[in-house]
Amino acid sequence: MYDVTEIRRDFPILSREVNGKPLVYLDNGASAQKPQVVIDAVTRGYAEEYANVHRGLHYLSNLATEKYEAVRETIARFLGVPDAEEVINTTGTTQGINLVAYGWAMPNMQAGDEIVLSVMEHHANIVPWHFLRERQGVALKWVDVDATGALDTQKVIDAIGPRTKLVAITHLSNVLGTVVDVKAICAAAREKGVPVLVDGSQAAVHMPVNVADIGCDFYAITGHKLYGPSASGAIWIRRERMDEMRPFLGGGDMIREVHKDEVTYNDPPMKFEAGTPGIVQQIGLGVALDYMMDLGMENIAAHEKALRDYARARLDGLNWLTVQGTTPDKAAIFSFTMQGAAHAHDISTILDKKGVAVRAGHHCAGPLMDHLGVSATCRASFALYNTTQEVDALIDALELAHDLFG
Amino acid sequence: MYDVTEIRRDFPILSREVNGKPLVYLDNGASAQKPQVVIDAVTRGYAEEYANVHRGLHYLSNLATEKYEAVRETIARFLGVPDAEEVINTTGTTQGINLVAYGWAMPNMQAGDEIVLSVMEHHANIVPWHFLRERQGVALKWVDVDATGALDTQKVIDAIGPRTKLVAITHLSNVLGTVVDVKAICAAAREKGVPVLVDGSQAAVHMPVNVADIGCDFYAITGHKLYGPSASGAIWIRRERMDEMRPFLGGGDMIREVHKDEVTYNDPPMKFEAGTPGIVQQIGLGVALDYMMDLGMENIAAHEKALRDYARARLDGLNWLTVQGTTPDKAAIFSFTMQGAAHAHDISTILDKKGVAVRAGHHCAGPLMDHLGVSATCRASFALYNTTQEVDALIDALELAHDLFG
Repeated sequence: MYDVTEIRRDFPILSREVNGKPLVYLDNGASAQKPQVVIDAVTRGYAEEYANVHRGLHYLSNLATEKYEAVRETIARFLGVPDAEEVINTTGTTQGINLVAYGWAMPNMQAGDEIVLSVMEHHANIVPWHFLRERQGVALKWVDVDATGALDTQKVIDAIGPRTKLVAITHLSNVLGTVVDVKAICAAAREKGVPVLVDGSQAAVHMPVNVADIGCDFYAITGHKLYGPSASGAIWIRRERMDEMRPFLGGGDMIREVHKDEVTYNDPPMKFEAGTPGIVQQIGLGVALDYMMDLGMENIAAHEKALRDYARARLDGLNWLTVQGTTPDKAAIFSFTMQGAAHAHDISTILDKKGVAVRAGHHCAGPLMDHLGVSATCRASFALYNTTQEVDALIDALELAHDLFG
Repeated sequence: MYDVTEIRRDFPILSREVNGKPLVYLDNGASAQKPQVVIDAVTRGYAEEYANVHRGLHYLSNLATEKYEAVRETIARFLGVPDAEEVINTTGTTQGINLVAYGWAMPNMQAGDEIVLSVMEHHANIVPWHFLRERQGVALKWVDVDATGALDTQKVIDAIGPRTKLVAITHLSNVLGTVVDVKAICAAAREKGVPVLVDGSQAAVHMPVNVADIGCDFYAITGHKLYGPSASGAIWIRRERMDEMRPFLGGGDMIREVHKDEVTYNDPPMKFEAGTPGIVQQIGLGVALDYMMDLGMENIAAHEKALRDYARARLDGLNWLTVQGTTPDKAAIFSFTMQGAAHAHDISTILDKKGVAVRAGHHCAGPLMDHLGVSATCRASFALYNTTQEVDALIDALELAHDLFG
């Protein structure tokens, strides 16, 4: 039984006020709040069990190493990864995708080679590929979405040509809420011998993910969106792709031996993790993922679907509001613009006065903004702890904004 | 008045026991413990004031952004940086030096160009340069230390030839405790038009640092060694060098505009900070640096010098122990090997049984181990909270190890 009132008590920040009003936190697409168990794990990590990992032989170092390495197993379980040694710890999706860009794509792609991506990618899954375009002449092939924000899987598959070396695609749009059928794309790409990188930053928050079932080659997640600490995260990399990669960040831990004239590298996953990692953050991420799995990813998804349906119905009632992204099975992420003069930033400022936190801007999705023909939108993005009452608070605040600006 | 007993009360972990003995934590070179104010800042960051930074307009986002950006000023004050916009937030020295390797050196160095470095560099300041050797034919020119572990500044200066494009050097050896006269090196290098990168991972912990006075071009620090959270850190980069750099990690925040066929980049420092940063960690780092500055870097240095002198005298009394690094002005970092059969790992295991945490291994300094002709050493490294009683505990434990193995 999913008791959202009880769940909310796990998140201390949700009981605070903002501008004299109860906090209605609908900026989860940017970052999620943290349950007490995660905060406690971080506190305990520093106050009782802290030391550097891997290199020590003393009690605290062994304890920290054991806790840190156990998280790899938790992430593997969370993502349906059969072998935890294919999980690379990162500071988030940005680092994960840059690892693939520098470690795999850069040495393996030539001028004229192509990367296929959708118009709704986040900058984290665009800019690393722009680097390859600027620096070594790789071409970016874009696939647009339709008027509802749906991505036609066949269009992506058709875009895969003989020079395509990679498909880089989001599993769930951070702006539109669109869910992409990455499994179908992966099956077709695999037949053509083209690896697929999936940006799971948003999807892993809202639905069960199983990379073995999806059949991709790379799957990146970000801890701070998964109710974990900032600068935590991971990327799963299929073993065959790892074997094709050179190391990315150089430093301690990722080497076997270093001499003046020679260096040899450690085996994966260590080969791709340089220097002292985010020890306590990753331990916190493990607790966050366990928290989600204890609630049940199916239960979280069901709760958020009910919220989505309620929010959609109420937003549809505001005929002066345009919602971007209207696919039936979308996630509970609503970007919108208000007809008339109001700029997204002004709307979000009014909402904030009522305690309602939403985001306004381009949402790190420049090409999608171009495609939609807008410079900015407001975005209300829901999480496992949000309620229908909070949807009502959003609607009330929007009506106030409309009265002021409309 | 520097009251170490009172200071120790600020660090909750120092009152714990390990293996039934009071913890004697002498593994500070690997990572330092955290004062309660840092732990509290992290807890408050998550429990009361958390949101993503930069992109929001709501109360919590503005609050988090303000706190996060204020840390840049704190780091600038800590390092004597005149302009806080020259401070780049990182996850530590490893990321900082890789930023310089990929962002500055890679596009600016040709085959046959040289990097001068000392034999006592940490792998974080070696492996990124090995990448340039392997990938684009850059040559590494090594300068050895003498039998005391001293680095002859003139030898470094003499190694700077017409093809030298960078000097990459530690300010303080993590193995020997040797302090390098980086100011003299920078003055000579500047005359020859060669930039200098200083690895300040250890130095910034033990002595006042002023990059304006040093005259270097890059100065990297690591938060977790500075009593701050794991995965926090920064690098200072002189404005002229920033202007020569291309971006390193691609993603949100570091761009101005992203379109399908074009990307433009943000101004520094944002240009070099991609994606959601380690928000709460950096806020914690700011508190840690304020804690150190409140104690006074001169006072910390004086306390540690007294500890060093006491430890040196007591270690010198053990004639079956060989200490590596005997320069008079060294930091309170003691690497040693025991004559006879005992391996460093065995010694550290015995010490651990007595509650004394030291490190055993190559200390991420492969070339130095080659130079010393050893595969591993034990290392006791001191911090602002250590005491002469803890030196005595180390000596007692070493005598026990000698009885068992000697």
